[in-house]
Amino acid sequence: MSETASPAPYQATDRTVPTRSRERASYDRELVHGILDTAYVCHLGFVRDGAPVVLPTLFARVGERLYIHGSTGSRPLRAAGQADPGLPVCLTVTHVDGLVLARSAFHHSINYRSAVVHGTAHEITDPEEKRTALDAIVDHVVPGRSLDSRPANAKELAATAVIGLDLNEVSAKLRTGGPNDDAEDLALPHWAGVLPLAPGYAAPLPADDLDPAVAVPDYLTVM
Amino acid sequence: MSETASPAPYQATDRTVPTRSRERASYDRELVHGILDTAYVCHLGFVRDGAPVVLPTLFARVGERLYIHGSTGSRPLRAAGQADPGLPVCLTVTHVDGLVLARSAFHHSINYRSAVVHGTAHEITDPEEKRTALDAIVDHVVPGRSLDSRPANAKELAATAVIGLDLNEVSAKLRTGGPNDDAEDLALPHWAGVLPLAPGYAAPLPADDLDPAVAVPDYLTVM
Repeated sequence: MSETASPAPYQATDRTVPTRSRERASYDRELVHGILDTAYVCHLGFVRDGAPVVLPTLFARVGERLYIHGSTGSRPLRAAGQADPGLPVCLTVTHVDGLVLARSAFHHSINYRSAVVHGTAHEITDPEEKRTALDAIVDHVVPGRSLDSRPANAKELAATAVIGLDLNEVSAKLRTGGPNDDAEDLALPHWAGVLPLAPGYAAPLPADDLDPAVAVPDYLTVM
Repeated sequence: MSETASPAPYQATDRTVPTRSRERASYDRELVHGILDTAYVCHLGFVRDGAPVVLPTLFARVGERLYIHGSTGSRPLRAAGQADPGLPVCLTVTHVDGLVLARSAFHHSINYRSAVVHGTAHEITDPEEKRTALDAIVDHVVPGRSLDSRPANAKELAATAVIGLDLNEVSAKLRTGGPNDDAEDLALPHWAGVLPLAPGYAAPLPADDLDPAVAVPDYLTVM
């Protein structure tokens, strides 16, 4: 699973072309990768007993494949492993970048970047790929962390299921910029503009049982 | 749609009891309301042509009903209006509160709070409820804002579809606290603890065409 060098965009399909605000859609590969790589959780949708289910979960991208892990007892992961030919899913990631205040209630919006991946998830059974995926999920949360923690042992690997989802049918959607008020509303006395969100981190909290001699690692202080 | 005073929890159902980490599940009404009310977007899942679809969208809660709005041309809103008896959905909201670093890769996790709502969405056709819902969606993003913007006119109301989803089959799930390392890993030399996320806001950005005489409203400076 090496990083593709191709700049070719994802090919649009019927279900990745939005019915509304098509000008906000993008199939740019690097844009999609950036949206995926900077989100801590995705929302994984699947169908159970005919009804939709949406659950938040950790994930990671390695090249053009996404990985999700969970207990071998979890319902969607069991379904992906048992079902042939796999589990149809929709995996969505969203960043909220700003609150858009217009003069009219109607034109209020948010600035956001989302990525939506349609496809079929399959259980990863190859031990080497499974280990790569699990390292990637740790590194997705804290880059470099997999090298500074005890690797999974055989028992932990056996208790963990990993499913893979290839990035084939993928789209991004984004809104940027200020409010789009109607011309006749511009003179109204209401403030209009954007309140940008500014995500950040508080100081690291050491575990209660951490040896005080163990310093906060550099990779946390630069986040 | 007045706020219920009842502190009774939501009743657990087969699909709101997780197969894994049941101790993290909660049916507490106020906890669920708090998770819903402080998230800017939800992830709405529904089934289209037999496959799952998950889309981010704005929403609001009024009492025990959630509202989602969109263009009358949007696919899920059309489906909710046309389908009898409505559109089966799963609406999920997630807050990521912290990154949990354990000595072992296996015990890495995140602290989070999520709410999952299962149910059937119906189009809201009553004009008064529709207007209440649209005001609530604006106020969900910026509390108090609906009173400081031009209300929707008849044309805008006609172009906007609103669907409602009652809070009946609802659960929260949350993880808090530090890493849960195995006893035999405690002496390993890796830092362990939590990196808390600290969401915030940057300075408001006035619209390019805003009259400089219009000051930033108080309700933005206190966010």
